[in-house]
Amino acid sequence: MFVGVDLGGTNIAVGIVDELGELKFQNSRPTRRERKPDEIIEDIIDLINEVINDSEIERQEIKAIGIGIPGLADPKTGNVIEIINLNWKKIPLKDPMEKALGIPVFIDNDATLAGLAEYEAGAMKGKKSGVFMTLGTGVGGGIIIDGKIHTGYNGIGSEIGHMIVGENYYDCNCGRNGCLETFASSTALINYTKKLINEENIETIINEKIDGDINNLNGKIIFHAAVRGDEIANKAVDRFAKYLSTGIINIISVIDPEIFVLGGGISKAGTFLLDKIRAEVLKSKYFKTLPVGDIVLAELSNDAGIIGAAMLGKHNIAK
Amino acid sequence: MFVGVDLGGTNIAVGIVDELGELKFQNSRPTRRERKPDEIIEDIIDLINEVINDSEIERQEIKAIGIGIPGLADPKTGNVIEIINLNWKKIPLKDPMEKALGIPVFIDNDATLAGLAEYEAGAMKGKKSGVFMTLGTGVGGGIIIDGKIHTGYNGIGSEIGHMIVGENYYDCNCGRNGCLETFASSTALINYTKKLINEENIETIINEKIDGDINNLNGKIIFHAAVRGDEIANKAVDRFAKYLSTGIINIISVIDPEIFVLGGGISKAGTFLLDKIRAEVLKSKYFKTLPVGDIVLAELSNDAGIIGAAMLGKHNIAK
Repeated sequence: MFVGVDLGGTNIAVGIVDELGELKFQNSRPTRRERKPDEIIEDIIDLINEVINDSEIERQEIKAIGIGIPGLADPKTGNVIEIINLNWKKIPLKDPMEKALGIPVFIDNDATLAGLAEYEAGAMKGKKSGVFMTLGTGVGGGIIIDGKIHTGYNGIGSEIGHMIVGENYYDCNCGRNGCLETFASSTALINYTKKLINEENIETIINEKIDGDINNLNGKIIFHAAVRGDEIANKAVDRFAKYLSTGIINIISVIDPEIFVLGGGISKAGTFLLDKIRAEVLKSKYFKTLPVGDIVLAELSNDAGIIGAAMLGKHNIAK
Repeated sequence: MFVGVDLGGTNIAVGIVDELGELKFQNSRPTRRERKPDEIIEDIIDLINEVINDSEIERQEIKAIGIGIPGLADPKTGNVIEIINLNWKKIPLKDPMEKALGIPVFIDNDATLAGLAEYEAGAMKGKKSGVFMTLGTGVGGGIIIDGKIHTGYNGIGSEIGHMIVGENYYDCNCGRNGCLETFASSTALINYTKKLINEENIETIINEKIDGDINNLNGKIIFHAAVRGDEIANKAVDRFAKYLSTGIINIISVIDPEIFVLGGGISKAGTFLLDKIRAEVLKSKYFKTLPVGDIVLAELSNDAGIIGAAMLGKHNIAK
């Protein structure tokens, strides 16, 4: 058995997961991110103890604890390098947790671990290599090569949202221009739809759905309108699919994985989006007659964070 | 001992290489690419026999033969998928060579093998992961991950010249727009310099060097002019360095290798170009405070093809 911790900006979720990646028991608490790192870490430890006690699993059965963070981790030292959302910088996490709990602790980035969850118990199961892409307010990635997490020599790989795939009309938060995230996140989709509504004199059913307030616009409304044939919505979704495909093709040009798994809020658009992306990749791939890795939707949704974190423990214990 | 074969559009080069990647003996013949594949393969076999006979190495000491091709190989079957330059399509290569020579034969792409040569005996020696980038008339790549060649699930990875890194004023040969090769090859450098000379009313010492004929323009002339402070040449080189850096940063965003090794004709521009690229990567990298893989020049130059091919044999025999 393994404990998985999904540290988010809103909630801390803790679960117990078996060797096969099945979630047995879980609980969560609000993160209350205005608190100091120490207090939040105390609370994580407390919740882990609570979950173990409330479950029917014996403490000595827990072989390791994994924790996924919404930022940059140093898996070697077990320290958090940075979590912008929580305002954490250079915070030891593995050490205080191991001291308090007496169980080995491992940390990594949450998108990487959601990818690991798909590899262990979801859409990537049985594959040797794969790339998980989380499409939400930003774009994150988790890369598996030869059955192992690949974050690279300096731990800064799999940041696929910041791959440059074109030139965009606005800059990325990171200060550069052309990042995949500025084309293929929900934020990007909403921004571009707003731009189209403002600049193009085309009727759109989106206007009804947002009650006249452009701030009500979200990805779901845009995809619903696109499915119903709305021109503005389809223009925005097509551009999203085009650049996401460029991102996928660029990843193929480097590591050519066996499978791509799309997760995150946007992936809820399901086969409508998937079909567009697959068609775009087939049209734009470099070797026209050769196959490329399959592109599928994630299978685990909300629990992927806990499961992946727990499986990080499994991977490290197995070493 | 291993035999390495470097099949090029102009010459077939064959050498004998020891376990440490040291070239012991070599010879070459013109490819005469107008011939049929059968005839060229016959000639390769003949040259291998000649080289073994002329060397002082016993035939039974040769453990394997590796061959690098200027196109797409299927390392699993040992067939050539395509060599555009030689007009080869779906040509068995491993099988006829093994039948004729009685020694195991392995094939792969020449840029991949030049990368393997740098890994075994050059600038990548002692590293666990690295990306070799060959900057010539096109842009090719060779990727090493965990000490092994990585060409991916469908064998179409490490085609880094066709990663999309921006929008360009002309399309790539492959039919798409924005490929790294259209920004960071010698062809791209020459094209853009011509464009600047035509469009900008700026005096340039390049005009003296080409004797008034723009067709005499080459990469060497442009770099020499840039080193001497020529404005046009520096504009062209700076653009080259900017997009090459985007390519490097994109690769970091995916696999974050320990080292980048720059080879090919353009790398002869040496530290002048290297300094520009390093500066650009430092300026544009995503995690400002974290290190990225070092960027260095290739060490092996012309022999890399033979050495890498021979080392392919070593890697496969060791399996």
